[in-house]
Amino acid sequence: MIPVSVLNSIAAIVGTENLFASAEDKIAYSYDGTPLLATLPDAIVRPTTKEQIGQILKLANQKDFHVVPRGAGTGLSGGSVPVEDCIILDMSRWNRILEIDRENLTAWVEPGVITSQLHQAVEALGLFYPPDPGSMNICTIGGNVAENSGGLRGLKYGVTKNYVMGMEVVLPDGAIITCGGKTVKDVAGYNLKDLFIGSEGTLGIFTKILLKLIPKPETSRTMVAYFASQQDAGKTVSAIIAERIIPCTVEFLDNTTIRCVEAFAKIGLPTDIECLLLLEVDGHPSVVEEEAAKVAACCTRNNASSVIVAKDADEAMRLKTARRSAFSALARTKPTTILEDITVPRSEIAAMLAAISAISKKYNVQIGTFGHAGDGNLHPTCLTDERDHEEIARAEKAYEEIFHEAVRLGGTITGEHGTGLAKKKFLHLVTGYTAIDSMRTIKRALDPNNVLNPGKVFDAA
Amino acid sequence: MIPVSVLNSIAAIVGTENLFASAEDKIAYSYDGTPLLATLPDAIVRPTTKEQIGQILKLANQKDFHVVPRGAGTGLSGGSVPVEDCIILDMSRWNRILEIDRENLTAWVEPGVITSQLHQAVEALGLFYPPDPGSMNICTIGGNVAENSGGLRGLKYGVTKNYVMGMEVVLPDGAIITCGGKTVKDVAGYNLKDLFIGSEGTLGIFTKILLKLIPKPETSRTMVAYFASQQDAGKTVSAIIAERIIPCTVEFLDNTTIRCVEAFAKIGLPTDIECLLLLEVDGHPSVVEEEAAKVAACCTRNNASSVIVAKDADEAMRLKTARRSAFSALARTKPTTILEDITVPRSEIAAMLAAISAISKKYNVQIGTFGHAGDGNLHPTCLTDERDHEEIARAEKAYEEIFHEAVRLGGTITGEHGTGLAKKKFLHLVTGYTAIDSMRTIKRALDPNNVLNPGKVFDAA
Repeated sequence: MIPVSVLNSIAAIVGTENLFASAEDKIAYSYDGTPLLATLPDAIVRPTTKEQIGQILKLANQKDFHVVPRGAGTGLSGGSVPVEDCIILDMSRWNRILEIDRENLTAWVEPGVITSQLHQAVEALGLFYPPDPGSMNICTIGGNVAENSGGLRGLKYGVTKNYVMGMEVVLPDGAIITCGGKTVKDVAGYNLKDLFIGSEGTLGIFTKILLKLIPKPETSRTMVAYFASQQDAGKTVSAIIAERIIPCTVEFLDNTTIRCVEAFAKIGLPTDIECLLLLEVDGHPSVVEEEAAKVAACCTRNNASSVIVAKDADEAMRLKTARRSAFSALARTKPTTILEDITVPRSEIAAMLAAISAISKKYNVQIGTFGHAGDGNLHPTCLTDERDHEEIARAEKAYEEIFHEAVRLGGTITGEHGTGLAKKKFLHLVTGYTAIDSMRTIKRALDPNNVLNPGKVFDAA
Repeated sequence: MIPVSVLNSIAAIVGTENLFASAEDKIAYSYDGTPLLATLPDAIVRPTTKEQIGQILKLANQKDFHVVPRGAGTGLSGGSVPVEDCIILDMSRWNRILEIDRENLTAWVEPGVITSQLHQAVEALGLFYPPDPGSMNICTIGGNVAENSGGLRGLKYGVTKNYVMGMEVVLPDGAIITCGGKTVKDVAGYNLKDLFIGSEGTLGIFTKILLKLIPKPETSRTMVAYFASQQDAGKTVSAIIAERIIPCTVEFLDNTTIRCVEAFAKIGLPTDIECLLLLEVDGHPSVVEEEAAKVAACCTRNNASSVIVAKDADEAMRLKTARRSAFSALARTKPTTILEDITVPRSEIAAMLAAISAISKKYNVQIGTFGHAGDGNLHPTCLTDERDHEEIARAEKAYEEIFHEAVRLGGTITGEHGTGLAKKKFLHLVTGYTAIDSMRTIKRALDPNNVLNPGKVFDAA
């Protein structure tokens, strides 16, 4: 427990109105979007200036408490779940878009800006910020940068890190630095910026983020293709890329997910198909027409039973909403939903889907799989009940086997959700122990007292 | 000096046929592409396996000598210039393309592969590796990754780091790790890969590099526009982007550069114009036609005196060769050529060009400026003679003022050449001293005995 005298010192820094320590407050901040993980923080603190954050971190080094930064708490690997003797640093009120620079195609934002609000603001100016994590209507840019979030448009447009040009960061010792800037090219010194991106709040607290924008694609075309075989759907993805077409979206939904989505959203999806691909191409109108036709032909050639091209923007939005509701649709069927996040090279999607089916049968657990097939990022989602300890144990064994298989196929244990608490014991499968030693060495060098979000990504010792 | 007994131990690791220590060998490896910098190494070593590199680094930690990795030695900031008590680790023989994976659009290469040889190999398969540094016909991929090299296609396609998906690295202590892989999305652990990219051989030795490829653009259109005013050329660049067109190339040549290029290459450029823009759009044929017309109209609207669209691939190649010969053309006019590498936000190009002109007059030095105007990356190039110490001193003062002005405009001291030895005393202008402390902390943590390329980027103390 952090002593009351220390909490009083924190309150003196941020003002008593910005420190919360009631039982209700602590419970509300004890978990994030990750199932099976919860710890009570000692307090929740809402700093209002970067200098306050610097002072809190200096105090943490002196008084030996921990600081866990948090945006909207939508994380799926436990990155913002409290640890022992910690305060939660709630950055969600830092929600101003500070500047949209139309000449340089950049935006300075505070870390608490909600991702879809940034989308709206820049799209109104004919610009585009591509990263679109599933939780984009509630998650924050700061959390996106901390976890290097992905989304549905990763194949063509990349992930969050591809759009972060700079940042202001409070370091673990309380010092404040700026990395990067509005220049497209900058090789002055080490690339600290990309080390901070995806470091899950363990190396610094972002107070300002500079994002790259691009011109908004002129038009898009959305379609859905139904398949009787997951192998055929997997082959279709490879065939589209082999035609040198890079769609902005290639989403996969298996039968379990389709049935849940249809029950939830009632948009008329057939529930007897094995799987579907939701595809979107975007860009210049004449290219979009040509590419859409080629993509549809690819689906048909690879045994799609039906290919439906959205007639208009409304129909396209309905199809995309179906995909966006996949997690919610799955989550309502059982008390506990464990959403995983493996990624394999595109060429191995069909093999990975087959492995997930076999493993789910082997351990007798219900797993619905959906995900970003275009970039090999799949979300095998286990529908279970955390009160059923025996089933949870089987689910954990199934996931362990799924992780091993993903890595064996040249993939990774997490494509966009982060390592956090939930997956740190599997990190060595991807990186090896020596690389984890290097990560630990860097963490220890920059945060010798381990004050910032300790125990996330890897253990200190 | 490294003791003979230690050199013998190194020879025992790599074989005596792979250690070179004659006076001629040492002189040949005493410099790179950077003017005014040269130091003799104690030996040149050509390892043939990663295990040998690991053993050499272990020995360096035990016997207190330094290791300076080198590809083709084309660097322009002194990254591969020898330091006291060092061996040069010559990686240029590691020149095999190990795999081109057409399904996943990736290539595994050894670090000594020459950049343009990779271009040819992948383009023969309809694929594309965009980074094209000026020295692409002689420089190596390993050096490109170590310096995070740019090139002419940075505006649309990004720089080297945007195409590095993974690598095998020998760490300063001799341990070997692999970072990244063929998955488009991977957030497992810290992003060590991007820390190594651009670290100028100070944090690890690359032994294998995994590159991202993209489909080759179907067609392109090249044009050149002449201007009587640098301000108009600068405004044209902003105007093109404001039309939401991202050309793959927007190169700027000032009058000094044009006159040198014309004298050198005799391609019929008018030598009485103030400056020119070389522009290229690429992609789908119908889009290219439309964008080329819009770009030409933009030039005319911003007072271009003439806009010439290349009739065919030959004429386009001739125009691009003119730009590619700019450095050579400038270099032959005077004994010493100091090529600088500032970058400013695109909106500040006109202001930066005006500042360079004023500063060159103030210090009475001849500076020709060319560069990648689309991404704000300019190469003000001083034509001088290193034997004229008084003029060199004025040139150094002029560059100091140019660096300050670039940073004042929101830019950086180096866009694609690196910090190395040549610019480390100016690094704090861009990053501040606190960020340099963080870089130094990371270097010290990963390389406590400072064996790998010491004194590059920043001083150890």
